[in-house]
Amino acid sequence: MNPVIVLVRPQLGENIGKAARAMLNFGLTEMRLVTPRDGWPNPSAGPAASGADVVLERAQVFESVADAVADCPHVYATTVRKRGVTKPVVNPAEAAAEIHAAPGRCAILFGAERSGLATEDVNLARTILTVPINPQFGSLNLAQAVILVAYEWSKAQGLVQPPRTELDVPAPQAELEGLIGHFERLLGDSGYYYPPERVGVTRLTLRNLLTKPGWTEQELRTMRGVLSALEGKKRSRS
Amino acid sequence: MNPVIVLVRPQLGENIGKAARAMLNFGLTEMRLVTPRDGWPNPSAGPAASGADVVLERAQVFESVADAVADCPHVYATTVRKRGVTKPVVNPAEAAAEIHAAPGRCAILFGAERSGLATEDVNLARTILTVPINPQFGSLNLAQAVILVAYEWSKAQGLVQPPRTELDVPAPQAELEGLIGHFERLLGDSGYYYPPERVGVTRLTLRNLLTKPGWTEQELRTMRGVLSALEGKKRSRS
Repeated sequence: MNPVIVLVRPQLGENIGKAARAMLNFGLTEMRLVTPRDGWPNPSAGPAASGADVVLERAQVFESVADAVADCPHVYATTVRKRGVTKPVVNPAEAAAEIHAAPGRCAILFGAERSGLATEDVNLARTILTVPINPQFGSLNLAQAVILVAYEWSKAQGLVQPPRTELDVPAPQAELEGLIGHFERLLGDSGYYYPPERVGVTRLTLRNLLTKPGWTEQELRTMRGVLSALEGKKRSRS
Repeated sequence: MNPVIVLVRPQLGENIGKAARAMLNFGLTEMRLVTPRDGWPNPSAGPAASGADVVLERAQVFESVADAVADCPHVYATTVRKRGVTKPVVNPAEAAAEIHAAPGRCAILFGAERSGLATEDVNLARTILTVPINPQFGSLNLAQAVILVAYEWSKAQGLVQPPRTELDVPAPQAELEGLIGHFERLLGDSGYYYPPERVGVTRLTLRNLLTKPGWTEQELRTMRGVLSALEGKKRSRS
């Protein structure tokens, strides 16, 4: 079950829209609003959601935090400030792991833009969720806090991953050896391997340099073509 | 060395400011701008940076992407779109691990708000950085992309972590046994353990329930006080 994002007393409709966009980017769709300052629906939310309308349309409004999380056995309070509350504190990655493993629905509380969550809100939660942040500059806004939590949660969700299989396969070793041999033949003809006592080291340097790129068969063919062209040029000159 | 964030042809000063704020939240301070559309400095950037002025003040402007990354041996191109370029593709966590391990400076390219990076920009990079995102709704803005990359990078930086040591230590087992014994004595007196053949199971249920919270010594004392109060009340009644 996907976690529920609860915005507690949000002020600007624009920020509710941005939070919806952040959620949907990472596959979260259930938003709950506790007494939004300017009522609900809010005409400023839609444009800021940049197309995440489905989240706003389904958003439910509640009169209290307790009502908003009444069906959730696991409640996290997102707060950056240290409070006099002794509860387990987790970061977004740890919260994501817990939420995926949790039997039952999880709710994550986010406070109002300026003031954050009140102590009473935090007291309702079993766990505090804190984003580790630059101690000299902690200025995370509502949508940013939501996106980091949603992003961490999404990691285990099998979203589109980088297309690893599309990477080209390096050419088989024999073809790389063909290129190295080609270089060596040409360079041998050109007097490159000098002085004689350095030949071993020089050849090794060249081999390592040519092995490093992991060139594909096509790229090796291109390089062979380059060498042949240089070879022909040289021959035609002589 | 901290990575350099390169904004390629950014359009709105507001978004440059938001990117600066996202960077500084996670300890990144070096921003480079490639031909920002509205010139530089841009009066809209400061207010959007919410105090991350140091990043904007130090921002350098370049005429081309090549100039902006000239001193960097490692260049990442952030793009969500699949292109006909075959380069290694990493997600933000993988990029962060590579950047921390890399000998030499890393630059991370971010494209313009609407169009993203051009193919020529991507061609300059050795690696493509992609944020895995909801395939039905990929709408990551510039500052959001920057914050996710900066956040992942910051994880290895020893930022303020949740204050784990402040959590209360559960009371020693002997004190928990004292509470369990107190409960059992009271309940035995009250006729709670009925029918007799269920006593074993009932006691086990109670033991598990009382073991689960991990109460501290103080909390155990509170519970003992509660029981004593109930006991006294009962006695005074009888």
